[in-house]
Amino acid sequence: MIKIKFLSVGKTHEKWLEEGIDMYVKRMSPWAQFEFIWLKDASQLEKALSAEKHVVILDPKGQQVDSHRFADWFFKKVEQAGSRLTFAIGPAEGFSEKVKAEYEAISFSQLTFTHQLARLILIEQLFRAFEIKKGSAYHK
Amino acid sequence: MIKIKFLSVGKTHEKWLEEGIDMYVKRMSPWAQFEFIWLKDASQLEKALSAEKHVVILDPKGQQVDSHRFADWFFKKVEQAGSRLTFAIGPAEGFSEKVKAEYEAISFSQLTFTHQLARLILIEQLFRAFEIKKGSAYHK
Repeated sequence: MIKIKFLSVGKTHEKWLEEGIDMYVKRMSPWAQFEFIWLKDASQLEKALSAEKHVVILDPKGQQVDSHRFADWFFKKVEQAGSRLTFAIGPAEGFSEKVKAEYEAISFSQLTFTHQLARLILIEQLFRAFEIKKGSAYHK
Repeated sequence: MIKIKFLSVGKTHEKWLEEGIDMYVKRMSPWAQFEFIWLKDASQLEKALSAEKHVVILDPKGQQVDSHRFADWFFKKVEQAGSRLTFAIGPAEGFSEKVKAEYEAISFSQLTFTHQLARLILIEQLFRAFEIKKGSAYHK
């Protein structure tokens, strides 16, 4: 079982977003378990990251991926990381230079999203990665 | 009042996605009206586009934008287009070469999204564009 943590600043208040994220969590339940951790602010996030082993940050300046490259990257990473991976979603002001220098960064888009929407996009791409691996019709 | 049409293939069935899109539609109601049109398939979408005046397609190979550039582009475009703009979201297999050659294309990401998620991302970026123009704290 793959165990994935999401670390982000500020909790999601929109019910519809939680429902969307829950839908993907349930769909992935045969393969992966998720844990969502909310931190109060950027410095708390930074502190929490330093306690994690295999951290990937989502940052517009990171390595640009399409869905296939993300899937390939993800499964390689998961293997290296002994099935334990931590994704960090940046605070509104972005990650500090220190964090950016320290961790591997993946870029989904040049756009700025709310961190809530970023969580939804990340979890949909993780679900898509599993579907790509299975060779299902979800990812055409 | 700006009038914006979204053309896409296949209707959204997920209730949470409709709620999310509705939330942004309501937030933009002082400035913009939205119309969502669903087509049966790619050829119906193509036909519908030919009847529209100012069409922009969302395509991974289009002009890459960040949120600020998208906002600038959007308000210029809206002015040129007499406040009537039509966004087309590609079918699962992507747009045909004919469509890609004919219309201006904007790229939000190299990732593949469900067309439902693409609608949510587009409408959030439109809301963000209005907030950027107002200089609000939404877009930091």
